[in-house]
Amino acid sequence: MPRKIKAYAEAGVDVDLGNRVKKGIHDLAAATHGPEVLGKIGGFGGLFRPNLKGMKDPVLVSSVDGVGTKLKIAFATGRHDTVGQDLVNHCINDIAVIGARPLFFLDYIGGEKLDPVVFRQILKGFATACKAGGCALIGGETAQLPGMYHPGEYDLAGTIVGIVDRPKMLDGSKIRPGDVLIGLRGNGLHTNGYSLARKILLQKLRLPLDKPARGMKSTLAAELLRVHPNYQPLMASLPAGMLRGAAHITGGGLLDNLPRVLPEGCRALINSRSWKIPMLFELIQHGGQVPEKEMYQVFNMGIGMVLIVPAALAGEAVRLTNGLVIGAVVKGAKDVVIK
Amino acid sequence: MPRKIKAYAEAGVDVDLGNRVKKGIHDLAAATHGPEVLGKIGGFGGLFRPNLKGMKDPVLVSSVDGVGTKLKIAFATGRHDTVGQDLVNHCINDIAVIGARPLFFLDYIGGEKLDPVVFRQILKGFATACKAGGCALIGGETAQLPGMYHPGEYDLAGTIVGIVDRPKMLDGSKIRPGDVLIGLRGNGLHTNGYSLARKILLQKLRLPLDKPARGMKSTLAAELLRVHPNYQPLMASLPAGMLRGAAHITGGGLLDNLPRVLPEGCRALINSRSWKIPMLFELIQHGGQVPEKEMYQVFNMGIGMVLIVPAALAGEAVRLTNGLVIGAVVKGAKDVVIK
Repeated sequence: MPRKIKAYAEAGVDVDLGNRVKKGIHDLAAATHGPEVLGKIGGFGGLFRPNLKGMKDPVLVSSVDGVGTKLKIAFATGRHDTVGQDLVNHCINDIAVIGARPLFFLDYIGGEKLDPVVFRQILKGFATACKAGGCALIGGETAQLPGMYHPGEYDLAGTIVGIVDRPKMLDGSKIRPGDVLIGLRGNGLHTNGYSLARKILLQKLRLPLDKPARGMKSTLAAELLRVHPNYQPLMASLPAGMLRGAAHITGGGLLDNLPRVLPEGCRALINSRSWKIPMLFELIQHGGQVPEKEMYQVFNMGIGMVLIVPAALAGEAVRLTNGLVIGAVVKGAKDVVIK
Repeated sequence: MPRKIKAYAEAGVDVDLGNRVKKGIHDLAAATHGPEVLGKIGGFGGLFRPNLKGMKDPVLVSSVDGVGTKLKIAFATGRHDTVGQDLVNHCINDIAVIGARPLFFLDYIGGEKLDPVVFRQILKGFATACKAGGCALIGGETAQLPGMYHPGEYDLAGTIVGIVDRPKMLDGSKIRPGDVLIGLRGNGLHTNGYSLARKILLQKLRLPLDKPARGMKSTLAAELLRVHPNYQPLMASLPAGMLRGAAHITGGGLLDNLPRVLPEGCRALINSRSWKIPMLFELIQHGGQVPEKEMYQVFNMGIGMVLIVPAALAGEAVRLTNGLVIGAVVKGAKDVVIK
């Protein structure tokens, strides 16, 4: 895997240590490589030979994202092996809603200084999720930027490239009034809303990270670090034609993300009593006296992905995905109404 | 162009302003889109339909990079429209050495707060270089991360995806002793060595950014912000079969980057008197009393790209590229000897 580590003498970097780390990275990345990855050439670029067999009109689908201030929870707890998984899974979901399967992922780590243990944990997160998601970790950049980051902190960015055959692309154009909205459960905040959540839970309520909060079994840290689920394998396993559209519920929540896939004249009508809002969101809402509408615009509220299926197939879709019917498409403006 | 801007109420973000900025981005990005870019769907992923006509065995070549602490010069001077160009061109060069043409680019901007003017300047840099390089700016993420970055500062990461037909891939395997090294001139530090350069020029020598340094016509700021050149169009214009290999001279300099493309048994012998080392590097070297070997390992020393061509074609290659013969491939260890 081509990875460049900038190690200038004056930055006080232990180059031998850096080289040992790099070797470890190579092994982690290699474990994510299938037959589509070609052997590296000089390390300038990652080489991927996509299997186009049976595709009529291949379209590359790409997306870039970060982890946001979920990173701050990793910094506070010293646990760095989950944020890379969050980023990979977030990216996979972002292209899954178009019907794409992931091909490869490239990461960027910017930080003050290379701590080999932390670095390896981050990389392990990327590799773990890539391997589980059938996605090759094909490139990365680690930038040591003296004076740019706070000591011990880092930022992450990830880019995914996937592929879909154009006739099978989910563009939402087949969505009709009468279709059913199936919500796939989330497991926490995923990768959004952490600035607000931290402000309320940690600053205002002063809840300790190392203890369970009210009504929770795990520590608050564990709840806040739960890995963003990858919904793509489940979506890809559905019978052809079942899905008319899908929305990944990220920043902007149900209110902003669902309209992105709706055609003109279609409104998403959601029954907010059709699923149990997880305790973590209630804690944030009540603790911060956050207006309900804002909650639905910042957080996923327990629904990580929404699938839109014809009503006749809704029963089967629920059975196959273990999802919940959370609403329906009705005639109206291209928006979301939550009742 | 799918671009997500996280704007939580508590972050004090002017959402209307954010929306106006987003519109501006859309126009900038749209100007880089050719027929291979499909209309956006919901904005979750960027859609690119590569023209595979005439390709026998298409291979996707990808790379990710940052700008390093060249950003600190942008912060110090308030000039933000060049760093995006640096990043795009750096990425294009990284895949050009494998023979790939760029398809699309995705950017990541992480920062404390969204300053719409700075933000637009950065984006303009990305769009300018993408357009000039025939590369679609197809996606981006702007993350506002309270408490992560210093006020007014940001980090950038960029990912490029290009394509090459496998039979035309430059893998260095045809390089033979007797081949000639052609150096393509650089125009400054490009995107590497800024931590060391800043330390010596600004901290040790206390040179002012707004005045020309000794022997220079432009201000030091202008010299340090010169945009990393894109060598790909020149390389792509060479007759088929002329290039046996190419090395982008980035972090690691000639010493570390050239061996990456050499086959076993081939050494690159470079005559350091065959080109004039630009004044900027001499200033750094003498001002910081940097050992010569370290100079060649941190900086490009005036050579931004090295092309490896058969001796019989060297004259034509020099004529076509306006490059310089800087050395030859000889029998030996897979390394670089500079004399």
